[in-house]
Amino acid sequence: MAVNRQITLAARPLGLPKVSDFVLGYKALSAPAAGEALVRTLYLSLDPYMRRRMDDIESCARPVSIGEVMPGGAVAVVVQSEDPGFRAGQVVVGMLGWQEYAVVPGSELRQVDPDLAPISTALGVLGMPGLAAYFGLLELGAPRDGETVVVSGAAGAVGMLVGQIAKIKGCRVVGVAGPETKVSWLRDELGLDAVLNYRTAVDFEQAIEELCPDGVDVYFDNVGGVVSDAIIRRINTRARIVVCEQLSQYNLEAPELGPRWLSQLIMRQARVEGFLISRYTERFPEGREQLAQWWTQRKLRYREDVAQGIEAAPQAFIAMLRGTNLGKQLVRVSELQVAD
Amino acid sequence: MAVNRQITLAARPLGLPKVSDFVLGYKALSAPAAGEALVRTLYLSLDPYMRRRMDDIESCARPVSIGEVMPGGAVAVVVQSEDPGFRAGQVVVGMLGWQEYAVVPGSELRQVDPDLAPISTALGVLGMPGLAAYFGLLELGAPRDGETVVVSGAAGAVGMLVGQIAKIKGCRVVGVAGPETKVSWLRDELGLDAVLNYRTAVDFEQAIEELCPDGVDVYFDNVGGVVSDAIIRRINTRARIVVCEQLSQYNLEAPELGPRWLSQLIMRQARVEGFLISRYTERFPEGREQLAQWWTQRKLRYREDVAQGIEAAPQAFIAMLRGTNLGKQLVRVSELQVAD
Repeated sequence: MAVNRQITLAARPLGLPKVSDFVLGYKALSAPAAGEALVRTLYLSLDPYMRRRMDDIESCARPVSIGEVMPGGAVAVVVQSEDPGFRAGQVVVGMLGWQEYAVVPGSELRQVDPDLAPISTALGVLGMPGLAAYFGLLELGAPRDGETVVVSGAAGAVGMLVGQIAKIKGCRVVGVAGPETKVSWLRDELGLDAVLNYRTAVDFEQAIEELCPDGVDVYFDNVGGVVSDAIIRRINTRARIVVCEQLSQYNLEAPELGPRWLSQLIMRQARVEGFLISRYTERFPEGREQLAQWWTQRKLRYREDVAQGIEAAPQAFIAMLRGTNLGKQLVRVSELQVAD
Repeated sequence: MAVNRQITLAARPLGLPKVSDFVLGYKALSAPAAGEALVRTLYLSLDPYMRRRMDDIESCARPVSIGEVMPGGAVAVVVQSEDPGFRAGQVVVGMLGWQEYAVVPGSELRQVDPDLAPISTALGVLGMPGLAAYFGLLELGAPRDGETVVVSGAAGAVGMLVGQIAKIKGCRVVGVAGPETKVSWLRDELGLDAVLNYRTAVDFEQAIEELCPDGVDVYFDNVGGVVSDAIIRRINTRARIVVCEQLSQYNLEAPELGPRWLSQLIMRQARVEGFLISRYTERFPEGREQLAQWWTQRKLRYREDVAQGIEAAPQAFIAMLRGTNLGKQLVRVSELQVAD
């Protein structure tokens, strides 16, 4: 365990990242100082926000520097702890980066209960995607029983949970996803009321009109672009639009123009709000408790797409940005049962 | 008084309305039925929302039909009342349309106190523009002491009040207006902290950056288009954007494209909300009371641009849409002291 394999940013991508924008490096491990723990990564989470941080623009967080380890949430096992709150063998979750090992302050780790659910769910249903779906939909979308909720990126890590939580709340739920494997999974297994395949649809606005005969009360947007243009034209009075991600926009080589729609917000007296999950940090315990309860009641289902080995992270990340993965994108970096 | 002169919609405008899109007609007056009053118009209000209602698209209200009297708020004097709540000689305000006389149910009229303020203020400071500024800014913009508030259309009927209310609330207020006569009035007479002349500015984004060194916390948008594009790029974390009108968009012959900015809403965790003043109908008494109090305390000032005679309404309306008027646009339709 003397060597830590890491993926660092090699070059800032123009448009969709290429594998050559990343580099696999080797670094000697350092021992944890007082208050820190050395952890070995089990699962790394790959998420759309990482793409934003690869650009050299001020964003929700500072840009990743060239040569810096790519940031990312991960589930890990404690190898050695100098923080009295943790001991070797415990499973934890934290922002550990794209690497096989990390030395981090104990204050930045949270223990994961392996008896509650598979440990990888700490990066999905019971992790940041779950909390983003929970607070974004319920606080900002505020869906009411019987309303129509549309979610784009409906098969993504956040989107799949938004759809299910909206169903729990008694809404009619319409997903936007593609290709067909995602569409049928959302409709046949997650029980969404209708799903629009954006890859095959010819006229988005007409499709949304047909799938949402009563209009759109809440739109949870993970994608942006032409899909959102069509949905915004169909919103009802006092509609709520929640902006979580804009996946269609992150990999454009030049900014895209679109129709202006602020007049529509006036006429519909509608609200659009963007959010970062950090806004709700103080309420995470409440969110996790509710998500765990729904999980144990078997009200939430999920699907994972798991790449193997830290070296597979760049390719898997690019696949997720292109939408060719199916389910929450993870990288299995190591096995829990390994002698350290 | 046997004849009522009315302005009706003659043709749906493409782009900026022309005088020929309106027609002046003559109609015999009918007597009020039980519960109604016959009123004579004193001041007609001309407002941007009227342009939206000239198009044959579903909007906040149904489109005006060809041949129908143009809608509009007006201050009038009661000529004959069959509603026990009103009597001849009283000054009232209501949605009376572009005409010299109207017969309306008493339930749609509200009495105006001529001793409180000039009666035309019932269409401005103490009327719908005042209420739109009051509720839009304070409820949706929710400005806090010391924050930066930007208002576009800052010299318009609503904008001039938004700026002054924001100053009352202790904000740094930056207006966007033009031409220079409006700019100097806002700066030198209303006391705004800075005013951007959008007609002469070369680089809006740089200008906003210079005038708002601490960023933008609240943006009250009456104009939309490229001005809003620039301001949205400078919003602070948890900024609130209030969308009242989109005057730059109403007279385009073809819809305009613009940059997409939903990613900016995510990064800034910002909110955009459109509104119609009808949302706050139940709270109008509260709003009117506060506006009247500020008025008597001389904390609100205003300016009116008054055209003469109902036949001048189309030309004055077009001037307002082009922004060549100065102050709240009114038409003086008749004098209060006339023997009926």
